[in-house]
Amino acid sequence: MNFENWSCPLPLLDYPTIVLGHGGGGKLSAELIEHLFLPAFGNPALLNLGDSSVLTVPAGRLAFSTDSFVVRPLFFPGGSIGELAVNGTVNDLAMSGAQPLYLSAGFILEEGFAVSSLGEIVTRMARAAYKAGVQIVTGDTKVVERGHGDGCYINTSGIGVIPDGLQIGPGLARPGDVILVSGTIGDHGMAIMSVREGLEFDTVIESDCAPLSELVADLLPLGGIHALRDPTRGGVASSLNEIAASSGVGMIIEDVRVPVEPEVQAACNLLGLDPLFVPNEGKLLAIVAPEKADAILDRMRAHPVAGRACVIGRVTDKHPGLLVSKTRIGATRVVPMQLGEQLPRIC
Amino acid sequence: MNFENWSCPLPLLDYPTIVLGHGGGGKLSAELIEHLFLPAFGNPALLNLGDSSVLTVPAGRLAFSTDSFVVRPLFFPGGSIGELAVNGTVNDLAMSGAQPLYLSAGFILEEGFAVSSLGEIVTRMARAAYKAGVQIVTGDTKVVERGHGDGCYINTSGIGVIPDGLQIGPGLARPGDVILVSGTIGDHGMAIMSVREGLEFDTVIESDCAPLSELVADLLPLGGIHALRDPTRGGVASSLNEIAASSGVGMIIEDVRVPVEPEVQAACNLLGLDPLFVPNEGKLLAIVAPEKADAILDRMRAHPVAGRACVIGRVTDKHPGLLVSKTRIGATRVVPMQLGEQLPRIC
Repeated sequence: MNFENWSCPLPLLDYPTIVLGHGGGGKLSAELIEHLFLPAFGNPALLNLGDSSVLTVPAGRLAFSTDSFVVRPLFFPGGSIGELAVNGTVNDLAMSGAQPLYLSAGFILEEGFAVSSLGEIVTRMARAAYKAGVQIVTGDTKVVERGHGDGCYINTSGIGVIPDGLQIGPGLARPGDVILVSGTIGDHGMAIMSVREGLEFDTVIESDCAPLSELVADLLPLGGIHALRDPTRGGVASSLNEIAASSGVGMIIEDVRVPVEPEVQAACNLLGLDPLFVPNEGKLLAIVAPEKADAILDRMRAHPVAGRACVIGRVTDKHPGLLVSKTRIGATRVVPMQLGEQLPRIC
Repeated sequence: MNFENWSCPLPLLDYPTIVLGHGGGGKLSAELIEHLFLPAFGNPALLNLGDSSVLTVPAGRLAFSTDSFVVRPLFFPGGSIGELAVNGTVNDLAMSGAQPLYLSAGFILEEGFAVSSLGEIVTRMARAAYKAGVQIVTGDTKVVERGHGDGCYINTSGIGVIPDGLQIGPGLARPGDVILVSGTIGDHGMAIMSVREGLEFDTVIESDCAPLSELVADLLPLGGIHALRDPTRGGVASSLNEIAASSGVGMIIEDVRVPVEPEVQAACNLLGLDPLFVPNEGKLLAIVAPEKADAILDRMRAHPVAGRACVIGRVTDKHPGLLVSKTRIGATRVVPMQLGEQLPRIC
């Protein structure tokens, strides 16, 4: 599909805003599907228009994942809820080592939401799906009364195929493993927070929202990958704590090795946030066998989404279940799982 | 799993209502998962706790479907958003002829929502999944600020396996086919509307919410089924209109043959609604070859969810794309697709 000269087709009946009828399963619903969703997402499975889509998959293991997106604002530097909704589920699948194939898209729209904004979101979803090599094959739209939503919430669920024989997972980290991150951290969370808080820097902080499936497909043939995780909500700290707990191992990272853009660090300082806890939407953590770390790092850096990949620490048999960080002044501190939410509605 | 003596386990940290932190990916999120979702839904795929679930499926064709649920009120006679969320997606899969296997569950909760209500909903989802023979294998929870949701919205997506060689679909109805309905219509919609409007009858109208997958599995071996549809939003009228349009055929039904409970008809009369447009959550329409209609009808009536199954009309090569109804006084009328929404937030 060529998106260069493509403009968002609007529903024929010419409603500039979403009305309850757009979720009613009648003509207005059909209009949204025929004039907005089908032209954007069009593929044979979706065109069938049954209650569910019929897909052909090879025998073996599938990955299945779901995520709802409630980010505020809907559009932000570097992306929108549309790219997030596609890449978020694509990346969850990729972290299981799966090749993502098919997505569903469920919209909960608020009465009064601009149809043109929905068109823009849907167009961005279609572009993101195209880039990530997945098809949006089934969908659903519900409309709630004004005051009972926030414009647009999106759920995506996804199916991917896991290569034969691959064994990776959060419980497979071993002492001695090396901890890699695929690039700078905190960009997504600080892009959103800068908009919300009206922070201005010389350079606008952009979300790192990107699909990681191609990167993972490049890395897996090298072998030696024990666990992968995309540090979204809760950031790097929560992801590493979870892997440490699942695997019954300790983790040590060095603050000076963790790459953070200067603007992101400045925004974190202003808001009193630790970049280790700030969400990312286009980065991964890889826990890898030490003898493979160099090869994996080289391959990461060769991919456009991971040019600044680096080693940030290692796995240890000491302090199982805990993440410990060496600070810039040489002290060590435990980096705990956070209790709740420092950045609500960041994805 | 034995639900008889099972009570909903509450999160340890003892928050009686949902706070933003329950969606933050930190300790509070983990508490909800460990103390609420896992005990209720517990199965090996979910216990893995990776970003996605790993499933084994046979080679062949899969059905994939998604649905969001925004019903108001959350609890109503005959069910709740929990049963709806499970059965709705189970039934969408079954209408493709698939055996439903796996569901995802995505929650969008409003700050301040009672954790005990969430517990009740999750328990009902677990029971419904058990009854329908599906596993809830992956999930996600987001929390939005007070005033930006309505307690609890749920998305479920599902995967099912389609038997080899089966060909059914909304485009496969043929002139001469018989139109069957599996029981009384309008029960779900009028159960909800009676609660909302405070209508009282001698008998409380209960939702017909039920899984249809077992019924479909009983019917498919008989052969002769060309299309199946569960008439949810938009009711029987919209479903038949859609099949008529997809197949390029006409449909004729007889009003006197369409089974409607007296209380449902009374509620429809009071509210000025036509039962043909009222949503159902446990009924199906089957478009079948005439020589198989009797056998299929007998098999339907032998199943508890379809005891009142009957023939309501037939497919014709006249007036392609149109649904026509013979009224009680012998006249005929075109039953069009409705424009928008007569019953908002009914599912």
